[in-house]
Amino acid sequence: MGSEGDVAQKLAEIVGERHFLTGEAIPDEYAGDEALVGERQKPRYVAKPATADEVAAILATATEHGIPVTARGSGSGLSAAARPSAEGILISFERMNTVIEIDTTNHVAVVQPGVTLSELDELTAESGLGYTVYPGEMSASVGGNVGTNAGGMRAVKYGVTRNNVLGLQAALPTGEIIRTGGKIVKTSTGYDLTQLIIGSEGTLALATEVTVKLHPRLGNGATVLAPFTDLDTVMAAVPSVVSSGIAPHILEYIDALTMAAITYTASLSLGIPDEVREASQAYLVVGLENKEAQRLSDDVAALGELLTGLGATDVYVLEGGSARKLIEAREKAFWTAKAAGADDVIDVVVPRSTMPEFLARAREIAGKTESGVVGCGHAGDGNVHLGIFQKDPEKRSSLLRDIFAVGMELGGAISGEHGIGRAKLEYFTELEDPVKIELMHRIKQAFDPKGILNPGVLFG
Amino acid sequence: MGSEGDVAQKLAEIVGERHFLTGEAIPDEYAGDEALVGERQKPRYVAKPATADEVAAILATATEHGIPVTARGSGSGLSAAARPSAEGILISFERMNTVIEIDTTNHVAVVQPGVTLSELDELTAESGLGYTVYPGEMSASVGGNVGTNAGGMRAVKYGVTRNNVLGLQAALPTGEIIRTGGKIVKTSTGYDLTQLIIGSEGTLALATEVTVKLHPRLGNGATVLAPFTDLDTVMAAVPSVVSSGIAPHILEYIDALTMAAITYTASLSLGIPDEVREASQAYLVVGLENKEAQRLSDDVAALGELLTGLGATDVYVLEGGSARKLIEAREKAFWTAKAAGADDVIDVVVPRSTMPEFLARAREIAGKTESGVVGCGHAGDGNVHLGIFQKDPEKRSSLLRDIFAVGMELGGAISGEHGIGRAKLEYFTELEDPVKIELMHRIKQAFDPKGILNPGVLFG
Repeated sequence: MGSEGDVAQKLAEIVGERHFLTGEAIPDEYAGDEALVGERQKPRYVAKPATADEVAAILATATEHGIPVTARGSGSGLSAAARPSAEGILISFERMNTVIEIDTTNHVAVVQPGVTLSELDELTAESGLGYTVYPGEMSASVGGNVGTNAGGMRAVKYGVTRNNVLGLQAALPTGEIIRTGGKIVKTSTGYDLTQLIIGSEGTLALATEVTVKLHPRLGNGATVLAPFTDLDTVMAAVPSVVSSGIAPHILEYIDALTMAAITYTASLSLGIPDEVREASQAYLVVGLENKEAQRLSDDVAALGELLTGLGATDVYVLEGGSARKLIEAREKAFWTAKAAGADDVIDVVVPRSTMPEFLARAREIAGKTESGVVGCGHAGDGNVHLGIFQKDPEKRSSLLRDIFAVGMELGGAISGEHGIGRAKLEYFTELEDPVKIELMHRIKQAFDPKGILNPGVLFG
Repeated sequence: MGSEGDVAQKLAEIVGERHFLTGEAIPDEYAGDEALVGERQKPRYVAKPATADEVAAILATATEHGIPVTARGSGSGLSAAARPSAEGILISFERMNTVIEIDTTNHVAVVQPGVTLSELDELTAESGLGYTVYPGEMSASVGGNVGTNAGGMRAVKYGVTRNNVLGLQAALPTGEIIRTGGKIVKTSTGYDLTQLIIGSEGTLALATEVTVKLHPRLGNGATVLAPFTDLDTVMAAVPSVVSSGIAPHILEYIDALTMAAITYTASLSLGIPDEVREASQAYLVVGLENKEAQRLSDDVAALGELLTGLGATDVYVLEGGSARKLIEAREKAFWTAKAAGADDVIDVVVPRSTMPEFLARAREIAGKTESGVVGCGHAGDGNVHLGIFQKDPEKRSSLLRDIFAVGMELGGAISGEHGIGRAKLEYFTELEDPVKIELMHRIKQAFDPKGILNPGVLFG
């Protein structure tokens, strides 16, 4: 064990004085992410490494001195997994923001973890390929997405982060650097460390390079909006759309309150007559894409017929501008909920077929405590995003616990894509099978014997 | 520690006398799988459990007494991961062969591990849905596929086992039973134990129930065969086919020798004129499917043009019977190689773009030791299946080591879908990063503190 001064000096040496902050010099942005709950907390140190070797050296130093380390991408997470410990080091990946390679033969990109989704989208555009994970926040970093296994609207067709990351370079808490997977789409050569690190919320190893899949951009897209008189009918329609073979890349439900809020916030008029809107309890938004324009318009027509048969009051094919704005407004639903005073935002995932029951029971639970529960979600994935309106912390905690318990009872999980972080730790600890938590903790120890990586996240 | 008699009695009690074998009563089939190398080995005990509880009880007993346990599905593996230890217990999942549920709303099936792919295919057919992992051996069990992360021809479109298993019930070596994932397509709620167990070759936990994704069966299919004068041109054509947007579900290359062997074995005439066949060094086989017949025939036409532009000598659209027979003959390539006297069969995976270099270097290495190397492979996945003809064990070992090293040097891995098992352990141990092997071993210990699960597989 060295003194505090030794640690600060060592960290400054590793990343360079200019890229090391401590004390008052640390700006507030490093005190957390976008999670709505809990107190923000500045770390003791902020280090901004430029290379994998620097990351590994920071980790080795932290392990030597037993100092907590939290990784930060863009800070757009919603579960406080990037909220540092008061006595710890925050590693900000902002300088590791290079797209190393766009490989059009193998259809992969190799990027540093601080690269944002919008940078990657821009740089891949010319190749006709693209990265298909759109968690609704294009300023999010690829490294952060790896941490939470981010999803988003297109997951119904393309899968979530874990389905689109083929390999990692990662620094271990003990200071070694490993490479897992690569530009290969399959492997059966030992344990899949790539998959284990994805979604581990910075508790096992820190990604210092990420190899992601790219898909051909299909060129022609359409957005279809269908109002329904009630939420159950929307939910019942979802499996039929999925099994129709039309293969939408977006399949979202939005409840009436949320639709009113997001369109109001975006100053967006969708051209829906007042009488239809007033009679609608929920909407389905379906995105289609095709390499050929004719096939797309045939699919749109088939989808319209299908939705009408499934009980849609009407079917609107949105024009380019409105379509884009609606999708953007939906992506900003979190911000709208926050602006409307939501006290928390959660993203329970359940088997697709159980969404109606899950929503009914969540509303029933909310009703008992006079809480508000409104939302939207990735209907094709069974991933329900709910804004929670309940100011009283105890009531809110009890409400959340009960809603998570219902989700798990239906065969689901506490979070589909936001992660547990610090924000949901108490519920995870209470509701998850203790045998699994113990096992996960032993896996954690296999990577991180001194427990330096993100203490307070996933484990109490 | 109890005596040997105690253990036998305990095992017989757990599964019932009728489902417990020892000594001479153990038939030879339980001595291994289809791996071509190494000595087959009968276990001391064979136990055939009927439930997860029985599996867990066997494991608890084995942990208590420190006895090795090897799991067996259908015994169709190619890497000897189902070859038991002489002093150990073989758990055969043959009695756990029930398809528990076909859920057409959530598009999943829940099956016991001993269910074969052909049983699952048959039972899902009526629903219009199907399980899309076809590793070329329909007698393979789902549980065995989980163990090796099996792939097969359709992986180019649908992914491998790990992309199609959503959840597990699994028995831990310590005797507990856990559930991971479920009928949900995403989760960010702790470490992904499902993904960690998949591909672990029976060394971490034993799956006692598997929840798999089902996809709509698209109804219309076509198989296109294109001969090329040389292998490099075939390989160079592959990325263009992948990025064309035509999205084939099969994309295989077959070298001329292998094509001659498999068509001869299958008594299959493809109607290719002698002069074309004689001038062809390699073939591309492309499978297309579509929910609509017109789109399929448009895609077949577009593919034909594309392949001609990419250097195919000719393009044949195979009729139903020939198409089916060719795909079946390709699936039986392993058996053909075995019948032809192959001394080993390997399945290196490399980045798709490096296949020509990999094959050229593999042939060069083979040439130096006068060994034969012929094959075929999942071209879209960069997964090269090679039959190795070299009788001398030392020469063969050196040849394999060098071929695996080239694959890894090109950014690939020793096995794409067959696994390491016992057959490739020496190469894995020598060539893999020791930091990763150490880490994997610590993960192994987190699951299996007494090291009872499949010793000799993955770790030396």
